[in-house]
Amino acid sequence: MTKWVYAFGQGKAEGAGHMRNLLGGKGANLAEMSSLGLPVPPGFTITTEVCNAFYANNHAWPDGLKAQVEEALAAMGKAAGKNFGDPENPLLVSVRSGARASMPGMMDTVLNLGMNMKTVAGLARLSGNPRFAWDSYRRFIQMFSDVVLNVDHGHFEEILDLAKEEKGVSLDTDLDAKDLEGIVAAYLAKVEEESGKPFPQDPFDQLWGAIGAVFGSWMNARAATYRRLHNIPESWGTAVTVQAMVFGNMGEDSATGVAFTRNPSTGEKMLFGEYMLNAQGEDVVAGIRTPQPLTERGRASGAEGAAMEKALPAVFGELVRATGLLESHYRDMQDIEFTVERGRFYMLQTRNGKRSTKSALKIAVDMAAEGLITRDEAIARIDPQSLDQLLHPTLDPTAPRENFTRGLAASPGAASGEVVFDPSEAERLAAAGRDVLLVRIETSPEDIHGMHAARGILTARGGMTSHAAVVARGMGRPCVSGAGALRIDEAAGTMSAGGKAIRAGEIITIDGSTGEVFRGRVPTIDPELSGDFATLMGWADASRKLTVRANAETPEDARVARSFGAEGIGLCRTEHMFFDAARILAVREMIVAENEKGRRAALAKILPMQRSDFIELFRIMAGLPVTIRLLDPPLHEFLPRTDAEIADVAKAAGVTVSRLKTRIDELHEFNPMLGHRGVRLGVTYPEIYEMQARAIFEAAIEADGGNGKPVTPEIMIPLVAMRGELDMMKRRIDQTARAIEKERGKTLTYLVGTMIELPRAALRAGDIAGTAEFFSFGTNDLTQTTYGISRDDSARFLEDYRKAGLIEVDPFVTLDVEGVGELVRIAAERGRAARPGLKLGICGEHGGDPASVRFCAEAGLDYVSCSPYRVPIARLAAAQAAIAGAARDRREDR
Amino acid sequence: MTKWVYAFGQGKAEGAGHMRNLLGGKGANLAEMSSLGLPVPPGFTITTEVCNAFYANNHAWPDGLKAQVEEALAAMGKAAGKNFGDPENPLLVSVRSGARASMPGMMDTVLNLGMNMKTVAGLARLSGNPRFAWDSYRRFIQMFSDVVLNVDHGHFEEILDLAKEEKGVSLDTDLDAKDLEGIVAAYLAKVEEESGKPFPQDPFDQLWGAIGAVFGSWMNARAATYRRLHNIPESWGTAVTVQAMVFGNMGEDSATGVAFTRNPSTGEKMLFGEYMLNAQGEDVVAGIRTPQPLTERGRASGAEGAAMEKALPAVFGELVRATGLLESHYRDMQDIEFTVERGRFYMLQTRNGKRSTKSALKIAVDMAAEGLITRDEAIARIDPQSLDQLLHPTLDPTAPRENFTRGLAASPGAASGEVVFDPSEAERLAAAGRDVLLVRIETSPEDIHGMHAARGILTARGGMTSHAAVVARGMGRPCVSGAGALRIDEAAGTMSAGGKAIRAGEIITIDGSTGEVFRGRVPTIDPELSGDFATLMGWADASRKLTVRANAETPEDARVARSFGAEGIGLCRTEHMFFDAARILAVREMIVAENEKGRRAALAKILPMQRSDFIELFRIMAGLPVTIRLLDPPLHEFLPRTDAEIADVAKAAGVTVSRLKTRIDELHEFNPMLGHRGVRLGVTYPEIYEMQARAIFEAAIEADGGNGKPVTPEIMIPLVAMRGELDMMKRRIDQTARAIEKERGKTLTYLVGTMIELPRAALRAGDIAGTAEFFSFGTNDLTQTTYGISRDDSARFLEDYRKAGLIEVDPFVTLDVEGVGELVRIAAERGRAARPGLKLGICGEHGGDPASVRFCAEAGLDYVSCSPYRVPIARLAAAQAAIAGAARDRREDR
Repeated sequence: MTKWVYAFGQGKAEGAGHMRNLLGGKGANLAEMSSLGLPVPPGFTITTEVCNAFYANNHAWPDGLKAQVEEALAAMGKAAGKNFGDPENPLLVSVRSGARASMPGMMDTVLNLGMNMKTVAGLARLSGNPRFAWDSYRRFIQMFSDVVLNVDHGHFEEILDLAKEEKGVSLDTDLDAKDLEGIVAAYLAKVEEESGKPFPQDPFDQLWGAIGAVFGSWMNARAATYRRLHNIPESWGTAVTVQAMVFGNMGEDSATGVAFTRNPSTGEKMLFGEYMLNAQGEDVVAGIRTPQPLTERGRASGAEGAAMEKALPAVFGELVRATGLLESHYRDMQDIEFTVERGRFYMLQTRNGKRSTKSALKIAVDMAAEGLITRDEAIARIDPQSLDQLLHPTLDPTAPRENFTRGLAASPGAASGEVVFDPSEAERLAAAGRDVLLVRIETSPEDIHGMHAARGILTARGGMTSHAAVVARGMGRPCVSGAGALRIDEAAGTMSAGGKAIRAGEIITIDGSTGEVFRGRVPTIDPELSGDFATLMGWADASRKLTVRANAETPEDARVARSFGAEGIGLCRTEHMFFDAARILAVREMIVAENEKGRRAALAKILPMQRSDFIELFRIMAGLPVTIRLLDPPLHEFLPRTDAEIADVAKAAGVTVSRLKTRIDELHEFNPMLGHRGVRLGVTYPEIYEMQARAIFEAAIEADGGNGKPVTPEIMIPLVAMRGELDMMKRRIDQTARAIEKERGKTLTYLVGTMIELPRAALRAGDIAGTAEFFSFGTNDLTQTTYGISRDDSARFLEDYRKAGLIEVDPFVTLDVEGVGELVRIAAERGRAARPGLKLGICGEHGGDPASVRFCAEAGLDYVSCSPYRVPIARLAAAQAAIAGAARDRREDR
Repeated sequence: MTKWVYAFGQGKAEGAGHMRNLLGGKGANLAEMSSLGLPVPPGFTITTEVCNAFYANNHAWPDGLKAQVEEALAAMGKAAGKNFGDPENPLLVSVRSGARASMPGMMDTVLNLGMNMKTVAGLARLSGNPRFAWDSYRRFIQMFSDVVLNVDHGHFEEILDLAKEEKGVSLDTDLDAKDLEGIVAAYLAKVEEESGKPFPQDPFDQLWGAIGAVFGSWMNARAATYRRLHNIPESWGTAVTVQAMVFGNMGEDSATGVAFTRNPSTGEKMLFGEYMLNAQGEDVVAGIRTPQPLTERGRASGAEGAAMEKALPAVFGELVRATGLLESHYRDMQDIEFTVERGRFYMLQTRNGKRSTKSALKIAVDMAAEGLITRDEAIARIDPQSLDQLLHPTLDPTAPRENFTRGLAASPGAASGEVVFDPSEAERLAAAGRDVLLVRIETSPEDIHGMHAARGILTARGGMTSHAAVVARGMGRPCVSGAGALRIDEAAGTMSAGGKAIRAGEIITIDGSTGEVFRGRVPTIDPELSGDFATLMGWADASRKLTVRANAETPEDARVARSFGAEGIGLCRTEHMFFDAARILAVREMIVAENEKGRRAALAKILPMQRSDFIELFRIMAGLPVTIRLLDPPLHEFLPRTDAEIADVAKAAGVTVSRLKTRIDELHEFNPMLGHRGVRLGVTYPEIYEMQARAIFEAAIEADGGNGKPVTPEIMIPLVAMRGELDMMKRRIDQTARAIEKERGKTLTYLVGTMIELPRAALRAGDIAGTAEFFSFGTNDLTQTTYGISRDDSARFLEDYRKAGLIEVDPFVTLDVEGVGELVRIAAERGRAARPGLKLGICGEHGGDPASVRFCAEAGLDYVSCSPYRVPIARLAAAQAAIAGAARDRREDR
């Protein structure tokens, strides 16, 4: 006979913690605690195999189940010293689902099962609290009817409201035992009316009904959707656990509480939590009385009443023993629920405790120091994404705030400042020492100076990878993007959302980690990056294999990147340098020039400025590798848009307004993302790339870093689709290098490589690697072209995709391993086959996303490059990937 | 000793026609003719191996070459009855290059080699024509100096001009022997002055100099570029052929001429060509005398003088024998050059003759009937692309014309009409029975009605695959796109190009096959599609394996497609139906609707119209498969643009102008190509696809084609990137089908498939084929995303790419086999692995391009679908691919 039922309790169990597949998470956990000798209320788990048999056999129970359940129930009563259905000493049970993977709230639960008109009296006697007994019965009827009998819970709420109205009270707690007895009678009548049958009084009928309903809830629509979203196969099924109820409200020798084995806010090693005498869990939630601390040391300011260590010393001893045992057994900080019924201590649940990032760091470092876990395990314990909280100022959690609107959490950190709608105005005010917050419908490359000047950026449109979001993350500026409810009336100097208005000059605060926008200034807390953070990052650096570089182009970016541990620059965009107010005029002159000669004249003005940019950058990076991408965006991005601007530019550039407008028209593109940009500019206007190569080489000689040797720049050609493009650019670059070597009498060393950011480049990587000395995967554009999705336009429909369950994560945030990832793997393989040891990196936004970093490690890349503020995240993610990879290798070796 | 030299002449040869690799095309051809017993002037070929040895050994000759050349030269003199360097009876020779593949004009040639102050006198005596002798010498000095001595030919032209000026004449032919003798003296002096050495008088010095120079020209920049563009390896090298010169100007028993074995204009089987007594080839070109016909029958109207069959009957007999021999030897119509020197007949060259498409068809069909070639060979002889000439009206080649401007040959055929700038005006005038030519800066989907009404379309912007070009080809309207010099001033009602202006209402003519635009009406000739065309197409249909469908959505398109032999519709776009004047209002109502209810109300108005479209289409196609693509373009394409239009639409749609403008703003996209379109519309607004599915199914039932069974539509979902999208759409479509089956009491059969037009879809094809019942490769979009190139924006830089030698053909015209093609192969393979027998087709513009059709056949696709007017081209290309495939299979079996 198949074993369908696994019992636990009294310090032993038929199951164990590793049997999640059979017993579900909850059942396995209870079995494990019981085996550890902990006082778990006795119970049993019906296996997931029963669930599958139930569905396979048209909702019929498999042979032998009934007998096994009855046997286990009898043993459970014996262990609890109670009897199921016994009016004198009734055993009440809970019936809960428990799948292999946690599916919180997705399936049904029934509590207090076993109550009827007889046992309610017994419970009243035993507890000395008739109100509690009748209230428990009332709740049981409501829950059972809803879950098992399909009677809408609205009916019961109606009866309850009517009773309160009649009595002239407003709180449930104002009803006494007598009132509740009357309500129970009304409930029972209602159930019979709605379901056509009396409410089952036989506890066994109740039990089988509840077990059937809980198994049945595996297939409800809510659970099915959750499974689809989380890739949980239907075939896993759920287990059902039946467990004795215990009550913390049986008198002054009863209590209920929660305990953390370490402080979840600070990570300090101490028992931390609270309890309440003569109470049930829901009383704590109801907030009628204030819970008391477990220990004197853990007493929060203002908490009253005796600490548990004083009030219930014996039971407290049991708690201490249990928590110690659990922490060393699970080797992690535990979050425990317990109940004391008439002086008897019961463990209800234990799980790894949630904690703040700061606390997580301290706990991981401490536990490694205590020898409880290894350093590798310490590294694996920290969610890299969570570090983001530490690297930016955060809102003081205790400060009051007034919500204004919300958008996407586009770039983390909190910032306050005066609302300014115009980027130039923002620059002016910031120069005068004022804190400004730039608010725009959306940003464009021309707004960079204003974004740089602002403390933070708020936009009404654009997704997580819109221009505003990408640039803000790169600069480390907090940003809330795509605040859909926000209406900006720039002319009137106001913005409004949900009927509230804010004028330019008023202070607002944004939280780029949550997407919230507040009126007024909310105080912030600055980050601290020493101590445990530094220790753990040191361990991570020792473990990881991937190098971590930063995407940086300004001296400030480069300095931040180094302070966060960047080992080079993986992407120095050169176009932002073109937008500088001092240069944009020369850039525009170049664009409107009639011929190569005119362009060369304008480029000659830009050359010394570009050169000095690179000199500074090379000096800051002090010999670390620097990858410079030649001009990428289409030229029209540099041209003015409004009539007034056009008039200004025409005057300054010495051309007529009509000539300038014609040029703007000529350069207009339907799909600029797929237009005349990247290497295509280099093909049409080779003199632009030639000037940039010259600026780089001359800077490499100047910034020799004191050792007399020029630095070794890595020159990167964007948007290559075929080898011929790269060949043509490399020839020009090489010619420029030879010319400069001749002029300066120095030898230059440099690499010429390419972005792999088009599907064709990935497929032709073998060919392209014949010329390219390195590849850098531009996964932003590669995602755009592989999916055929413009990231600037995707916000409006990707949200529909998320709602429809078609995607879980934005592919611009976490790399699409199946599609884009296959192209990365193909390119890596073909590239290295053609050029062994070819250096491979990634410089898209994904370089700072932990899941994507893991993919990069698995794909064999040499480095990832990300925004300066994400460098620590990437370092930690890289360490975790290396540790997981080593573990995988060990498994495969076995 | 390696054999470096292969002699030919006197009816025998050491080489043969198959030795192209060693002897080059020219050398092998001469050897072949000589072996056939034809009277080729004697000569010898120095092998390509010498070329390689020459470069490998630092421009030194390999051992033994000198002796072999001298020996061959002596034999050659003997055969010619002359002696190299003999003042009395000099042998003059030509020195020419000849590579394995034809590289016309890329390398150097020297003629009349062997002339010096002594032999010039001999030649004067022998020819009785001192002027000819001195002129030959003069030309030799100029050519030799240019090619061998690097003396710029400008010097010689200067001397010649001076001599004419002094004599007061303007033509070279006005100079007599005396004058030319003086010029020769001046030339010789100039050579010595420029090169520092006297002009070589020793014929052997001349010979080795010329051989070295011709080998040297293999590496000149022109040849290197040509090789790169045509993938000719440098290692192939060139051969050099030295051949006795013969002269047709040695008296009235000498002549020169050309002959075709069949009429190259009509294909008629007859000797066709002309000759000139006492003349050299260049005299024919100079046009001083009119050439005479070869036969009386071939006499052109107005040609004077005796036919060769009368004037030189014996030699004519030799010509007839030679041409007959050559045509049956080469099994193709030959284009022959011959010379008669003092009654002796010489064959100089034979090659397959160029011919008109009409002639090519007749020759192929006739030769197959004669048993000279097989039907497969006949099919292979026709360039599918050339059929395009036959399918459209063409300009009468004899009609006078006035050029106005030119653009790209975007859609073939010629058309004349009044210039109209506004599409609605075009529709109005056309309805009034007038021929109009729509002229636009560029077209958009809103111009469709005007494009349809026009006889032809001319645009100032846009490439071969711009909206105008694609739509025009689909409709079979001639189109010239991207006429860069054209300036349109719509307000003033004029257009201008190159300083010439044309007003609206004036007549112009466009030739969409050449890109030319003419002022006024140029008469055209209508196509004839019976006879040889029909015969050959019948043979092609019997040979091909690929099915050929058409891209068609209007009844007119569908009828044209069937008349051209389409076997179904591979792409019926549904958006063009939305632009119809009667519907656009309801479409716009749907777009501005606030919610699903409003959208459904608008869609209900569109439903009956869509349904009747499909009924008509199904009836025309009479049971042939019809693939219908659900709505693809972003919604903003349907909205108005100008303020006036916006006001009209707002009024009609019952919304405020500001509401409409807001909606237009909301729908604006930065990169519409990568935006909210295709299946993404279906995800956001499922009710749109639901309406379309309903229209299709209801039409399928109505249009049962008389057999009582509904037709089997193929419903195609565009822009799928992941299987989930397709699953969601298929669920809706299936639900709709079930509902209609219930309503109508009929059973529906249909397929649901997808476009594969994104790299991700190609990579995930295995997954997607789990749901898709067919794949149709949308290679337009797949090319855009694989390359990251917007076809609407590509014209401006692809031209630079072509000039730089980076691409040979526009990847939107001929499928990029290496990149896009790999994705097609991957998708085909993975799709069929998941669903054996999965139906695969292509419906991009490439479906009508012969090279791309060949690729589709090789990739194992089931069908291609193209514009109706390209169906015959695809049918023929498919047959050629099948024949080539079968030949490949036979070779591999061996």
